[in-house]
Amino acid sequence: MTSYRITLLAGDGIGPEITAVARTLLEAVSGRHGFSLSFDPQPVGGAAIDATGEPLPESTLAACRASDAVLLAAIGAPRFDALPREQRPESGLLALRSGLGLFANLRPVKIIPALAGASSLRPEVIEGVDLLVVRELIGGIYFGTPKGRIEVDGGVRAFNTMVYSDHEVDRIARVGFRLAASRRGRLCSVDKANVLDVSQLWRDRVEAIHTEFPAVELSHMYVDNAAMQLVREPRQFDVILTGNLFGDILSDEAAMLTGSIGMLPSASLGSGGPGLFEPVHGSAPDIAGQDKANPIAMVLSAAMLLRVGLQQEAAAADLEAAVDRVLAAGYRTGDLLMGEGCTRVGCQAMGEQLLAAL
Amino acid sequence: MTSYRITLLAGDGIGPEITAVARTLLEAVSGRHGFSLSFDPQPVGGAAIDATGEPLPESTLAACRASDAVLLAAIGAPRFDALPREQRPESGLLALRSGLGLFANLRPVKIIPALAGASSLRPEVIEGVDLLVVRELIGGIYFGTPKGRIEVDGGVRAFNTMVYSDHEVDRIARVGFRLAASRRGRLCSVDKANVLDVSQLWRDRVEAIHTEFPAVELSHMYVDNAAMQLVREPRQFDVILTGNLFGDILSDEAAMLTGSIGMLPSASLGSGGPGLFEPVHGSAPDIAGQDKANPIAMVLSAAMLLRVGLQQEAAAADLEAAVDRVLAAGYRTGDLLMGEGCTRVGCQAMGEQLLAAL
Ligand SMILES: CC(C)[C@H](C(=O)O)[C@@H](O)C(=O)O
Ligand SMILES: CC(C)[C@H](C(=O)O)[C@@H](O)C(=O)O
Repeated sequence: MTSYRITLLAGDGIGPEITAVARTLLEAVSGRHGFSLSFDPQPVGGAAIDATGEPLPESTLAACRASDAVLLAAIGAPRFDALPREQRPESGLLALRSGLGLFANLRPVKIIPALAGASSLRPEVIEGVDLLVVRELIGGIYFGTPKGRIEVDGGVRAFNTMVYSDHEVDRIARVGFRLAASRRGRLCSVDKANVLDVSQLWRDRVEAIHTEFPAVELSHMYVDNAAMQLVREPRQFDVILTGNLFGDILSDEAAMLTGSIGMLPSASLGSGGPGLFEPVHGSAPDIAGQDKANPIAMVLSAAMLLRVGLQQEAAAADLEAAVDRVLAAGYRTGDLLMGEGCTRVGCQAMGEQLLAAL
Repeated sequence: MTSYRITLLAGDGIGPEITAVARTLLEAVSGRHGFSLSFDPQPVGGAAIDATGEPLPESTLAACRASDAVLLAAIGAPRFDALPREQRPESGLLALRSGLGLFANLRPVKIIPALAGASSLRPEVIEGVDLLVVRELIGGIYFGTPKGRIEVDGGVRAFNTMVYSDHEVDRIARVGFRLAASRRGRLCSVDKANVLDVSQLWRDRVEAIHTEFPAVELSHMYVDNAAMQLVREPRQFDVILTGNLFGDILSDEAAMLTGSIGMLPSASLGSGGPGLFEPVHGSAPDIAGQDKANPIAMVLSAAMLLRVGLQQEAAAADLEAAVDRVLAAGYRTGDLLMGEGCTRVGCQAMGEQLLAAL
């Protein structure tokens, strides 16, 4: 029997609760599809700071590297905000992405008809939205050097460097074009080439890689216009390809168009090694430990792990179908829109319904 | 009689049409309020490239410096896209902002009830939105050095520097706090301090300046979350204070919430010299010269020029009242939502209605 090793990073806040649900479902679905999973829970983020003093212990990174895929729930808690940035939970996440070489972050944004009413957009504007943000994840201003803070003539100056090299753009562009080719065939590359040198290189390289994918329709958009167009007419987008910082901003904006960020999974991929799968939402410290969390984004992240990380398409589809059935049956966690005949459930009860629906 | 010199920068695309409307109205309103205006039309952007080879001729900058206020319509046209960036229309705009020391860009976003239906957001979400984005305009990654493109081990790398010094943050923070104090007393500073050194300095200095304005309530928000919150619940914001790049993105997103960017003015101010007033919308080359443009954002920019640039509050209020009356009477340019009993008008006819309503 094929067996895979999954590193489980429960992290902070609601992380442990939603991780427990995802693990149970992964165990159930793997049994029914003839493969087995072994889980290796490891600390990261605030939980790791508490345990070891560091947001990403060497042992956690080593465990991730040695596994077939990594499932991460969420990191971050307000009580670490006063620490120097390198010691905060977020820095553990950045180090993990970088340490695993996860240069491609995939964030699908799709309207679930039963929950469309939760959107702050008019129904006719969001109906049928189905887009994918492909964000470069280990370059750009997040990791660029030089950076820091210096004293200058009686004052202080702080700076970061937004930098891309041609091969960094080329590899993420190929991911974007390939995904666009497997979808509706349209790629919109977002930059600020009218102001930034780094964006001009981005645009030049995306154009160059386009010659490898002549069937994909390529367009370019400035980031300010993209922020507008997502609000105005989100249906115009198929795949959005962009750098680390612009991707951070636009993928969150795009996620919020649905009104239900407790439903959105993501995948971060490198070349060859294990991928990292995680919900788009955060650690929600305000409701942690109260059995109120919505585990669905985590379960859908587990489905992406099965499909993209382990090539277990049938098992992934089973998990997703269970989510559809439970939503159709009207089960809703506290963050989700209630409709006629809906039932409020907690995190654990949602997990039980999902298991029953499998 | 008090007399002011206004540099008129009609620029590109629909610029000349909407400038003509604004000029006529400014002449009319100044006469009725006992001051006179002299207009000095100067080329900028694509128009200046055609005339002189440069997007911001020295003579245009000198004329602006020598005037009491600058009214700019719009710049940019696709036929210049192939030029090196420094020679494009946009670079003229950046050089103008920098040359006049306009560090504070103010972009009010207010829902006009008669046009609320044009928003892609649900009416209950946008009703009553009234926020102001205060964007730092001559620092950050737009102007930071080093920047450029270099060859590295058989490849190419391009980079820009996002940099702020303490005094740059301090002066824009003071503008933000002062404006918040004159409004609903709440300032939300937007940064990415969980990742960027430059944002950490930004946050530290905003905290420091807050001690000068204890009556203003200060909050901090990460830029990705701000992009979400603008969509989710825009009413939560009073004044948003942010850097050049984040302000570019968020102010356009915020503007699009209204659904009518043909209605939104902006002001760019320095310390002492003339301010620059311009609509938020672009040069709309697709409808240029067809008498289809909406001159209202330009007219409201002229009103901001009167109020903020020349301290002619009564004249500014008159112009704004004329806009309200014409909208209430149902006159709409092609970009605006029609309602029952509304009349479609072109740019010139809208100008005539505004003049009649004065
Ligand atoms: C927590 C933070 C460092 C992170 C980022 O900016 O990448 C988050 O916002 C995300 O998008 O995953
Ligand atoms: C045209 C461009 C350089 C400019 C900017 O990015 O500042 C524009 O988007 C704006 O916001 O005024």
